[in-house]
Amino acid sequence: MRVGIVGGTGEIGEGMAMRLSWIMDVCVGSRDPGKAQETCDTCLISAKERGIDCSVRSGNNQDVVRESDVIILAIPFKHLKSTVEGISGWEGKIVISPVNPMERRECFVYTPPAEGSAALFLQNILPKTTRICTAFNNIAGNRWRDISSELEYSVPVCGDDAEAKQIVMDLVNQISSLKAYDAGPLSSSHIVESITPLLLNIARFNKMKDVGIRFV
Amino acid sequence: MRVGIVGGTGEIGEGMAMRLSWIMDVCVGSRDPGKAQETCDTCLISAKERGIDCSVRSGNNQDVVRESDVIILAIPFKHLKSTVEGISGWEGKIVISPVNPMERRECFVYTPPAEGSAALFLQNILPKTTRICTAFNNIAGNRWRDISSELEYSVPVCGDDAEAKQIVMDLVNQISSLKAYDAGPLSSSHIVESITPLLLNIARFNKMKDVGIRFV
Repeated sequence: MRVGIVGGTGEIGEGMAMRLSWIMDVCVGSRDPGKAQETCDTCLISAKERGIDCSVRSGNNQDVVRESDVIILAIPFKHLKSTVEGISGWEGKIVISPVNPMERRECFVYTPPAEGSAALFLQNILPKTTRICTAFNNIAGNRWRDISSELEYSVPVCGDDAEAKQIVMDLVNQISSLKAYDAGPLSSSHIVESITPLLLNIARFNKMKDVGIRFV
Repeated sequence: MRVGIVGGTGEIGEGMAMRLSWIMDVCVGSRDPGKAQETCDTCLISAKERGIDCSVRSGNNQDVVRESDVIILAIPFKHLKSTVEGISGWEGKIVISPVNPMERRECFVYTPPAEGSAALFLQNILPKTTRICTAFNNIAGNRWRDISSELEYSVPVCGDDAEAKQIVMDLVNQISSLKAYDAGPLSSSHIVESITPLLLNIARFNKMKDVGIRFV
């Protein structure tokens, strides 16, 4: 199984690419393939420093979707539509949305589209056979990139295709100390997405950094 | 400072009453004052078994509001309007809403009113001087009542009145091992409320019991 990261050169994307490339085949995508190659080099260096193997290649975002079984959309909500619609070949793929539509006003505010969540928005613009799951929504980019630290978080996973959801949960459980939880259908994604602005507000109002969640 | 519990004889209310009566003055309210007295007796027995003092009295819900500085609305959303509108004297009080509007369909679904959350709904029906905070939304009734166990949860607190919010956070931090977090303005309450159906779904789909959250 190959995992592709669309937007793999952003803060979250690069951290994901490193941590995933240590444990499985990864394809890092970017609008700028040169940048994607830089992220691959970072992955290779991080693996070498740990004395472990690393399987990573770069490409444009279209390459990533063509060559991967599971695709993580590591992009901001505002670029979701143009990025997704600029790529073909989504049929049958498993797509992971860690996307959280939000705005910074006086505090962080959840601002879902009319569909109710980024995940349901995606469902509207992707082919019917694409199997969408939400995952990784509530982990700060800083924590992804800080590869010396364990990620000791709970990861709620929403989705309507049971097989795809199990594949995504197995993927989550392979990364650091993350623990996946089946959080119900894709229609529950709005709750998972909205937790991120809540965590950002909690960090700000309680003088904390990179707050995450654990289900106990 | 006296804390009143409107709906203090329900599962969550009774657990709250016990745990609060060990550490502060509590007034337990119910539509049926006889039932409220039963809850008081339960509190007194629980304190005696622990060899600690207990300060609790009973009354109807109107007594609770009149005699308390902080009032916890331990009632289901469907009874919120009729209960609140049937009581006078809310002016200047601190009101805590642990209320989560939700329905059980194929899974638990967050069903906020048009205002966006139970907290903002309350703001609409209470006098302008009432200081509303959300707190205790994500703790299962079973855990409140299981007084032999520590409550090791994070408690997000939303509200627009800084002084009231601090009083509520101090109250939270006195109970068991709960830890309060300033989670922003009252308008963010919808996120906190919606976490409860998410936790119920996680419990169900992952074969867990009484799931709560911790911010880490």
